[in-house]
Amino acid sequence: MPRLKWGMIGGGEGSQIGPAHRLGSGLDGLFEFTAGALDHRPDAGREYGRRIGLPPDRAYGDWHEMLEGESKRADKVDLVTVATPNATHFEITKGFLQAGFNVLCEKPMTMTVEEGEEIVRLAQETGNICAVNYGYSGYSLVRHMRAMVARGDLGKIRLVKAEFAHGHHADAADADNPRVRWRYDPKQAGVSAQFADCGIHALHMASFVTGQEVESLSADCVSCISSRELEDDAMVNFRMSDGAVGRLWTSSIAIGRQHGLTLQVFGEKGGLRWTQEQPNQLYFMPLNERLQVIERGEANLSPEADRATRVTIGHAEGMPLAFANIYTDLAEAIRARKERRSVDPAANLYPKAEDGLRSMAAVFAVAKSGKEEGVWVDARPPMFR
Amino acid sequence: MPRLKWGMIGGGEGSQIGPAHRLGSGLDGLFEFTAGALDHRPDAGREYGRRIGLPPDRAYGDWHEMLEGESKRADKVDLVTVATPNATHFEITKGFLQAGFNVLCEKPMTMTVEEGEEIVRLAQETGNICAVNYGYSGYSLVRHMRAMVARGDLGKIRLVKAEFAHGHHADAADADNPRVRWRYDPKQAGVSAQFADCGIHALHMASFVTGQEVESLSADCVSCISSRELEDDAMVNFRMSDGAVGRLWTSSIAIGRQHGLTLQVFGEKGGLRWTQEQPNQLYFMPLNERLQVIERGEANLSPEADRATRVTIGHAEGMPLAFANIYTDLAEAIRARKERRSVDPAANLYPKAEDGLRSMAAVFAVAKSGKEEGVWVDARPPMFR
Amino acid sequence: MPRLKWGMIGGGEGSQIGPAHRLGSGLDGLFEFTAGALDHRPDAGREYGRRIGLPPDRAYGDWHEMLEGESKRADKVDLVTVATPNATHFEITKGFLQAGFNVLCEKPMTMTVEEGEEIVRLAQETGNICAVNYGYSGYSLVRHMRAMVARGDLGKIRLVKAEFAHGHHADAADADNPRVRWRYDPKQAGVSAQFADCGIHALHMASFVTGQEVESLSADCVSCISSRELEDDAMVNFRMSDGAVGRLWTSSIAIGRQHGLTLQVFGEKGGLRWTQEQPNQLYFMPLNERLQVIERGEANLSPEADRATRVTIGHAEGMPLAFANIYTDLAEAIRARKERRSVDPAANLYPKAEDGLRSMAAVFAVAKSGKEEGVWVDARPPMFR
Amino acid sequence: MPRLKWGMIGGGEGSQIGPAHRLGSGLDGLFEFTAGALDHRPDAGREYGRRIGLPPDRAYGDWHEMLEGESKRADKVDLVTVATPNATHFEITKGFLQAGFNVLCEKPMTMTVEEGEEIVRLAQETGNICAVNYGYSGYSLVRHMRAMVARGDLGKIRLVKAEFAHGHHADAADADNPRVRWRYDPKQAGVSAQFADCGIHALHMASFVTGQEVESLSADCVSCISSRELEDDAMVNFRMSDGAVGRLWTSSIAIGRQHGLTLQVFGEKGGLRWTQEQPNQLYFMPLNERLQVIERGEANLSPEADRATRVTIGHAEGMPLAFANIYTDLAEAIRARKERRSVDPAANLYPKAEDGLRSMAAVFAVAKSGKEEGVWVDARPPMFR
Repeated sequence: MPRLKWGMIGGGEGSQIGPAHRLGSGLDGLFEFTAGALDHRPDAGREYGRRIGLPPDRAYGDWHEMLEGESKRADKVDLVTVATPNATHFEITKGFLQAGFNVLCEKPMTMTVEEGEEIVRLAQETGNICAVNYGYSGYSLVRHMRAMVARGDLGKIRLVKAEFAHGHHADAADADNPRVRWRYDPKQAGVSAQFADCGIHALHMASFVTGQEVESLSADCVSCISSRELEDDAMVNFRMSDGAVGRLWTSSIAIGRQHGLTLQVFGEKGGLRWTQEQPNQLYFMPLNERLQVIERGEANLSPEADRATRVTIGHAEGMPLAFANIYTDLAEAIRARKERRSVDPAANLYPKAEDGLRSMAAVFAVAKSGKEEGVWVDARPPMFR
Repeated sequence: MPRLKWGMIGGGEGSQIGPAHRLGSGLDGLFEFTAGALDHRPDAGREYGRRIGLPPDRAYGDWHEMLEGESKRADKVDLVTVATPNATHFEITKGFLQAGFNVLCEKPMTMTVEEGEEIVRLAQETGNICAVNYGYSGYSLVRHMRAMVARGDLGKIRLVKAEFAHGHHADAADADNPRVRWRYDPKQAGVSAQFADCGIHALHMASFVTGQEVESLSADCVSCISSRELEDDAMVNFRMSDGAVGRLWTSSIAIGRQHGLTLQVFGEKGGLRWTQEQPNQLYFMPLNERLQVIERGEANLSPEADRATRVTIGHAEGMPLAFANIYTDLAEAIRARKERRSVDPAANLYPKAEDGLRSMAAVFAVAKSGKEEGVWVDARPPMFR
Repeated sequence: MPRLKWGMIGGGEGSQIGPAHRLGSGLDGLFEFTAGALDHRPDAGREYGRRIGLPPDRAYGDWHEMLEGESKRADKVDLVTVATPNATHFEITKGFLQAGFNVLCEKPMTMTVEEGEEIVRLAQETGNICAVNYGYSGYSLVRHMRAMVARGDLGKIRLVKAEFAHGHHADAADADNPRVRWRYDPKQAGVSAQFADCGIHALHMASFVTGQEVESLSADCVSCISSRELEDDAMVNFRMSDGAVGRLWTSSIAIGRQHGLTLQVFGEKGGLRWTQEQPNQLYFMPLNERLQVIERGEANLSPEADRATRVTIGHAEGMPLAFANIYTDLAEAIRARKERRSVDPAANLYPKAEDGLRSMAAVFAVAKSGKEEGVWVDARPPMFR
Repeated sequence: MPRLKWGMIGGGEGSQIGPAHRLGSGLDGLFEFTAGALDHRPDAGREYGRRIGLPPDRAYGDWHEMLEGESKRADKVDLVTVATPNATHFEITKGFLQAGFNVLCEKPMTMTVEEGEEIVRLAQETGNICAVNYGYSGYSLVRHMRAMVARGDLGKIRLVKAEFAHGHHADAADADNPRVRWRYDPKQAGVSAQFADCGIHALHMASFVTGQEVESLSADCVSCISSRELEDDAMVNFRMSDGAVGRLWTSSIAIGRQHGLTLQVFGEKGGLRWTQEQPNQLYFMPLNERLQVIERGEANLSPEADRATRVTIGHAEGMPLAFANIYTDLAEAIRARKERRSVDPAANLYPKAEDGLRSMAAVFAVAKSGKEEGVWVDARPPMFR
């Protein structure tokens, strides 16, 4: 099977996300890095692209140039990853979708709900793939949680408890550091800081694992460092489409935690607990039995988990492989389209434009509720109400 | 030093709490079990009392008889523990306080805020000791957390994250078992179930450790098992008297958890985490340093911690010793009164009538907010506003 | 049931072991502290005994006086605990056994194998109870491990892996501190330091849990701090009476460990792991299934575990309760003798003189093998060969 | 910088190690998969090679053909990985080294000590790079342990405690499964089974981290499943070149463990503990201070650790990245040779032919000692004595 052609916008020299995408897309040899517009400075981007192996004519100066160049080619890229600053995601994603490309967009997909609805409609109309990079959903045992819930191992889901709390922005003396400050400045970050940055991953995970959408929510947002306009800590209660209750805590001032993405799911017949910092174990307690440790890679897991594991049991797998699983799914989706066949359902798990839209609606709902003393608000995008 | 004389109401044959109090009071040899009215069936109580070592004339048939009998004696009991069904705590505590006895009352101290205020006034007027048994505050490292906060190791406290979530009432098929059902029946349990039963311990802990009182709160209460009138899961956001933000989750349907009492405290200069199930370690991260493991019994802890530890480092200490520390404090308080001296401040940590009252106000506030879509309500007892 | 009468030799003011024994014996109200010779200075011992509640005529000046005094009484003590310096254990235990008393001796029971054999014979001849305080065997889940092995849950036992490794004697600058130094001085400590002090507990545990005796062993003993004559670290391989292989590591220079008593048992059908520092969980993996967490206090454990648990599931139990379980067993054994009935088998688990003797034989075997490059030596006492 | 050219022998369709090497070599884009002889069936190997992207003329039928083909080319491969069955490692490695290629050989490098010495001499004489794949040494925090020891954070090393114990061969009913059986058959596996397969990794780690070589050892080898000729469990005591004492346990019958590679290092000034199953945390206790948690990716770690980390703190990194670090080191070594400059010392950490030789000497020493009741034997290869 020839490798698919892959391009990236953003992710230039010194960025963290660029190498992560190159690693994720290249890991299984499914994609070949073929084109890019890697830097907002055209010359620097072209030069860096060539240096890391792009053909000179496909190391573009900006995304417009890349869109034009790739559109003309017979061997155009099969997938474009958008890893630029947040405010530009919408227009780039829109541009490429309209021109017939498949897109994987970094989160947030857009800056408003309206833009999100536009992307969803565009993806639906064009039939092009539009994915959003909620990469934590790529972990093998996260996918197994979803499969367990789907096949009824937990019975009806009663409650989801999600956390994404770290302490990396807890230092008041560092709050004016530009690297940190922009996140809490509404002019640059939008209506939400910590929830939009981290909490939204946990919320996506809650939906991903339960198969239920968030319908309404109530938020308590605070700025523990008082110079911040946007929240550095939030507690969100929510209700899901099949009746599950949700509770989500996110923080950037929780000194002593390094990451803290954790999901607990409680149903009528059992409970689950998983944490990103030790992602190779999943704790499962069937009702009235004992807590069990499910190991990544053990025999007889779900097809979804098996497909997303590469290393034998007992060896640690980490975030880069989770990330790569998003690309593996996309390769399957792209190939299925090319081959006019249906997608392997165990691979159809990559987050989609609809997820990006729902996340944006949740961000605005949290911001609104947070300002209005925790009033319950509809968290669904208008087009899904 | 002769042993103090101790009596108990309730805690009869087959109860769990009776042996726990006998163990706790007797552990250090500070109290002698001298009198009791142990059962609501007078003969059974008298017989059981004698069987477990009470002098025949001090094995009483009911609390009125005991109050009368002890009041007449020169060698009357120094402390009365009230371990009867919840609805009777108020009148018994009131009766003994009025008659000049010191009382340790099981939680909840009362069933209403008004009753709670009456007990507080009575304790203040009589000068008698009135304690409430929030026993988890007796753990050595919990006391060390309090000392660390008090001496400024964490700087100003920003956020407290408390949990008390277990799964022991998650079985819908067992929900009508009378042993479980009464807790969720407002006729027997009052206005709150899981919060009043477990959550309140976590809330007390938040105040105990930070030295701040809860001022206002917003609650999301749900009954995951639909036949229940009262909540089996609640999330409470709160604000404290010196500006700390609070988040508290309590549940009885969290399958996979056995107990789940956990406290995290985040300040400007550091973070702490402690969990009851492994109470001999305390996790401390000073800002911009590494996570450290504080061991119970290590050198150079606070006097409060040292006083509350009995076993050398590396050996497990458990709940019975925490419980006993409440009695140890009470022995010191009683002796200080007898000797007309001030109490050792490191021992003046037992929960007091004021704590019992504040808890009751919080229970009613949670119930009110829970019914009114999470509206923020004043959580202070009227007498403390 | 009236309380049994209990006396103690040693354990005077400022000792750690004295309060531990008083706590352990008093915890369940089964024993009453009635007599004692608590200090090697007669007057200090008498004074301290009275101060902590002994009747003046039973606060003795030394053990000879106590032996004489108690022997004459009709209401003599039912059990004598020997908590004096190691070198005196033999003669005191022997004296009291000969005079018809039951004895609980601190470990080591004797300083030589020959003395150990003499005690065993004396206990057999007199029929008096002679127990040795390997207190870790009192933990509820340790007893459950034993029950699981006995009923075949693990199949035939293949391997036992035991550790007792801490770092409290790792500081070379503190090695000459008399509090530490005597342990490594053969004149005071005998033929072994760390193995005799800590390793022997782990070895006892291996036998206790598997029901197999140690038959032969090979030891690698080293002094990591070179000024020490006796070992501060040892690795012992051994073979047991029903074919199990054993591996035991003990150390006092393992910086970063606080205690480290851990037992792993591997059989044909499953594996177990338990550690003293978190004694309320036991990890069990049945062959070809998943790792399970057995919780102290869960339903349907063995009678041996149930009898040794006092606190409900989810609450921490610690060392003092394990210690108390030895006394609870002894109370049952003493009563059974008085009542001329057989002992409850679930309570007949206290370590006996035979265990004390076997431990002593193992200590000498380790010392011999350690000096002779790890040669395999018979670890059984001559009388059991 | 153009990518280096990489080839592989073995690792054909369905193997585990093939994809792992392709992933590891490709992860950073430093190597391009250019040539291969992937299967012992020439046609299958050629076909598979082409299918996964090799140029048709460099998809060889066997290693002789590949050696001949590549030798003729100007653009020959820069590195050859040998991932064939163990018995063939020696001749292939020898062949390629002699012909001027750099080689990364899977472990074991050879089947005898003599062969190992021949490879070492050949690497020295030719100046070609000969690496051996002890991949666990590639973990970022393992390299940090080495750096900490080297810079004296632990003082002089007293003791190393290593383990590699799992339970995957514990099922007696599965012992005759050919997939398992060959490992315990001396005709196929040589003189040692579990030690040679797993223990040797732990022993390499002990040397890698301490910078000391193993000089002598004593082993206790047992076959817990009696039909096995070779050991499934071994305990090895050893002595190292700068005086450190070593203890190593390896097992394949330890039901309940999934992998179990763990290293503890104790020095005069501190202790370290790391375990492969949770490789992103390293536990460090400085003498007389508290246990600290060092996080992979935290600020101010050693250059060796920084160079070997790719993902930000708090995110899990796993075995594939450790593996890739061996390739990253090799890329640097190869480039340094090409550019006639010295190698970055922080990258000169890949295991070398000398390590492969020392391992083989240790395997034979363990086998000899295991047969002779644990006699101490010299564990050094003759050429290093």
